[in-house]
Amino acid sequence: MDKVLGIIAGGGDLPHAIAQSVAQSGRKVHVLALRGIADESWIAEFSHDWMGIGELGRSLKLLAAVGARDMILVGQVDRPTFSEIKLDARGAMMLPSLLAAARKGDDALLKAISDFYAREGFAVLTATEAAPGLVMGEGPLGKLKPNADHEEDIRRAFAIIGALGPLDVGQAVIVCEGLPLCVEAAEGTDAMIARIGTLRKNLRGTPEKKRGVLAKGLKATQDRKTDLPVIGVKTIRGVHEAGLAGIALEAGASLIVDKQAVAAEADRLGLFITGVVP
Amino acid sequence: MDKVLGIIAGGGDLPHAIAQSVAQSGRKVHVLALRGIADESWIAEFSHDWMGIGELGRSLKLLAAVGARDMILVGQVDRPTFSEIKLDARGAMMLPSLLAAARKGDDALLKAISDFYAREGFAVLTATEAAPGLVMGEGPLGKLKPNADHEEDIRRAFAIIGALGPLDVGQAVIVCEGLPLCVEAAEGTDAMIARIGTLRKNLRGTPEKKRGVLAKGLKATQDRKTDLPVIGVKTIRGVHEAGLAGIALEAGASLIVDKQAVAAEADRLGLFITGVVP
Repeated sequence: MDKVLGIIAGGGDLPHAIAQSVAQSGRKVHVLALRGIADESWIAEFSHDWMGIGELGRSLKLLAAVGARDMILVGQVDRPTFSEIKLDARGAMMLPSLLAAARKGDDALLKAISDFYAREGFAVLTATEAAPGLVMGEGPLGKLKPNADHEEDIRRAFAIIGALGPLDVGQAVIVCEGLPLCVEAAEGTDAMIARIGTLRKNLRGTPEKKRGVLAKGLKATQDRKTDLPVIGVKTIRGVHEAGLAGIALEAGASLIVDKQAVAAEADRLGLFITGVVP
Repeated sequence: MDKVLGIIAGGGDLPHAIAQSVAQSGRKVHVLALRGIADESWIAEFSHDWMGIGELGRSLKLLAAVGARDMILVGQVDRPTFSEIKLDARGAMMLPSLLAAARKGDDALLKAISDFYAREGFAVLTATEAAPGLVMGEGPLGKLKPNADHEEDIRRAFAIIGALGPLDVGQAVIVCEGLPLCVEAAEGTDAMIARIGTLRKNLRGTPEKKRGVLAKGLKATQDRKTDLPVIGVKTIRGVHEAGLAGIALEAGASLIVDKQAVAAEADRLGLFITGVVP
């Protein structure tokens, strides 16, 4: 565990949270920040290089230069327009198989990239392996718990996630008193949560009178190495504004960026966050 | 077939289309228009009464008064706020079982209401029985056909509809080149189609360069008597503006309000509409 961990960092808060968590555990990290995708605000805190998304050959050299043999791919990468990517020689060689994988879905694309590094001899870690402190456990985080109605909505939401998972859809679902209100596809969880506000008022709650549950789980097609459901303080605020009563996450397969801050914000706003084994 | 058909009419274009289709076939209709829900613009074309949604006892008397023993429940009814409904005695008696059914989902609620009329001795017809001329058949409506890529997206979309159906979700899905973009839950098909415009441009098409398919099917929980997927000219225009290439409907289990106008508009805008057996 004293060797360098290479972190290929996409967008969002998760790469930063993982780099912090790993560094705090005493392990060195080297971040390969994806140009135009990773959030510039935190990269300079760590040993790093910037790289283009098509520079696969260069990424191998950069990881070798710092002696990293363990690595992780983490963060959001919007599906690129392949014709606009600047490719190095290895990137160009991989392009046909990446295009074929992309055709099968985002999960297949991520897995193809992960497999590329595994074939090059890297141990590709999961986020839960690299940063176990971020993993959501079973039961409530914070002071509030779901009531019996919420438990029923949670069961229904995970039934939907379970049915959709093999089809590469539906990491997140909102159910309110038995009625499925929103199913996430390509729009992202934040956009799905915001959509609640456009539904008729009798179908949903309000910040004052909260109703319904956001559930996030792992798709059956999803590669645990590269992509896990993740929430942070922003998610809690969005869920509050949408009038939902709380959040249910798949225990052991979801990540929380800053557990303390998330629990405190949920307590302050009167929301539950609970980890369940579907 | 010379007896009066009672039509309890909710919102949207479908009740009007069915009343027209039945009347054109030579059968008398009597419309019970749901106050505040049915569209006022067309009701006066037919023999009719207005009724409140909680006046179940009154509806039985009104149907008896015109000699209707066959009936159909048709059109959108937003899930009501039960506490605000004015109930007559029969409505009040039915309320507990309707509340219990509502808890299980919209489909269960509709079925409970349909069963109420069946127990009172009515033959509750399906929309396809009452107005067979509106039913989508197999194969293309209009001049254009899906290409091989569209066929693949259609298969994927119906796989999603099939997986979600038993859970009372997902009558409509949008898939674009292998990627599921939108899954309908409580927001309605028009709102789901409009959402396409908020997705990143490389995920979707444009009216000039169309990509992706809207698929609508029948949920496994859905009662064919009361609720079928339906499209009209407005749907065609929404699909065009969203940059989709066409629409796939479940053959024999979807309705088209004004087939001629819909086919002409699809031809004009360069969209396919096809009926498939999933």
